[in-house]
Amino acid sequence: MPERAEWIAVDWGTSALRIWAMRGSEVLAETRGSEGMGQLAPEDYEAVLLRHAERYLAGDRVTEVLVCGMAGARTGWREAPYRAVPCTPAGEGAVKVPVRDERLKVRILPGLSQARPVDVMRGEETQIAGFLAGRPRFDGVICLPGTHTKWVQISAGEVVSFRTFMTGELFALLAGQSVLRLSVASDGHDADAFRDAVGDAISRPESLGAALFSLRAGSLLEGLDPVVARARLSGLLIGLELAGARPWWLGAEVVLIGSAAVAEPYREALAAQGLAAELVSGERMALAGLIAAREVMA
Amino acid sequence: MPERAEWIAVDWGTSALRIWAMRGSEVLAETRGSEGMGQLAPEDYEAVLLRHAERYLAGDRVTEVLVCGMAGARTGWREAPYRAVPCTPAGEGAVKVPVRDERLKVRILPGLSQARPVDVMRGEETQIAGFLAGRPRFDGVICLPGTHTKWVQISAGEVVSFRTFMTGELFALLAGQSVLRLSVASDGHDADAFRDAVGDAISRPESLGAALFSLRAGSLLEGLDPVVARARLSGLLIGLELAGARPWWLGAEVVLIGSAAVAEPYREALAAQGLAAELVSGERMALAGLIAAREVMA
Repeated sequence: MPERAEWIAVDWGTSALRIWAMRGSEVLAETRGSEGMGQLAPEDYEAVLLRHAERYLAGDRVTEVLVCGMAGARTGWREAPYRAVPCTPAGEGAVKVPVRDERLKVRILPGLSQARPVDVMRGEETQIAGFLAGRPRFDGVICLPGTHTKWVQISAGEVVSFRTFMTGELFALLAGQSVLRLSVASDGHDADAFRDAVGDAISRPESLGAALFSLRAGSLLEGLDPVVARARLSGLLIGLELAGARPWWLGAEVVLIGSAAVAEPYREALAAQGLAAELVSGERMALAGLIAAREVMA
Repeated sequence: MPERAEWIAVDWGTSALRIWAMRGSEVLAETRGSEGMGQLAPEDYEAVLLRHAERYLAGDRVTEVLVCGMAGARTGWREAPYRAVPCTPAGEGAVKVPVRDERLKVRILPGLSQARPVDVMRGEETQIAGFLAGRPRFDGVICLPGTHTKWVQISAGEVVSFRTFMTGELFALLAGQSVLRLSVASDGHDADAFRDAVGDAISRPESLGAALFSLRAGSLLEGLDPVVARARLSGLLIGLELAGARPWWLGAEVVLIGSAAVAEPYREALAAQGLAAELVSGERMALAGLIAAREVMA
């Protein structure tokens, strides 16, 4: 019989959720589900949560559940309105979610918004809070690579400003759905081709559309290796982003938060520009952020 | 009973085909089909052609069929290998296609290729030939907007060089499949928003990924009008292309060949940069090119 949790931490994203059964800051058990926000209606969430976490609930008291991520979107479980930057990354503005099961008390952490340039994040603020919990004096830039990569300026424990680039989603669309799918391998990497493409995109960002089609033409005319094509596609898109994000990383201390698979190419691309970025696990930071937010809220 | 054709012209693209029953350069009848290269196996083409065009065939003699477009791709009816530029746009290198029906003699026109930078076109060369048939002394740049927009340098009746930008396909993917589909209308236009976005992308092409996500954030935070978002998306992508294609159009005589729906935004974007481009129908040019190619081949 599993141990009962003091509280439950949940990172509920667009395509998956992670659940930790907690006692204070100690993890008693961990589980995952594939029921992301993208496939759920508001009335589905409580049942999904119970399916994965009921075994951690005590029968004789209320167990607190703290959720971050897309479950707080307008189209999620219940909207947790954005907090405007500059502000601390997490702990304020949690929204209580009405539930039927009396053993549950559920709150969702809000995302962050920015007026100029207009931007939003949801979920990443909790990873940032987790990072700052361990490094409260950090003053610099955090980059969270992903479907929608975030560049975040941190100072005095606050998110000062941020900017989102659609790089990950562009890669997925081009590699999976465009004519390039016929020329690009579904995995594999070539460090030289990647680095060259990063450099090409940084020096000629305006040529993206032509550089992309060259992958197809190279494959038709010259038998371009699909693994090289994949590395070039990734390099062109990350290079374009680095060109646009240059004010963020140039001369800054940069920390990359994310899974190794997604963050490592960014580390590689920044290294080629002479910048040594630190790489930190996003999953660990999400949990650390939920723990930190709970402490702030207590 | 329909009139018998002297010959048949076919523009066979990825997603559709157009067929003209011809006598010399006179159109006797015209028909269309939705059986594009993308959905056909090599053995399907003859039956599709007969389904649409059998009524134009005489029973007692062979009718010549001249095809341009993606039917000549490696994955089409029969490969018509690319001709390398610089060269005249059409009339050389047609490939004879074996057929079962003795009333048919089918040939497919090849596309064009370029070694540096590596590039290909298939179908556009025939539209270019059609344009040059009516304007043999044209010296300048032809832009053929579409899924894969082509910029083509013409001199002394030859295609000197060209470059392809994946702009149309990027627009379709982002508007239809990305997170932006939630923020972008499926039609409508806003000339001011379009022009501003063209200018933004030309001056900061490296910010594309961030400018794209701003459409989503603007929609979430400020209720950005979906028609404005669509115009901005189109403007950002065409602006990025114009930044990359600047060496092609700057100070040049530019002719746009395409349907009004696709070419008009390019005309608008170029006009905002102070360049008056001429707009010519792509469909008319494809037919004119098939007629011109047949005359060269005779």
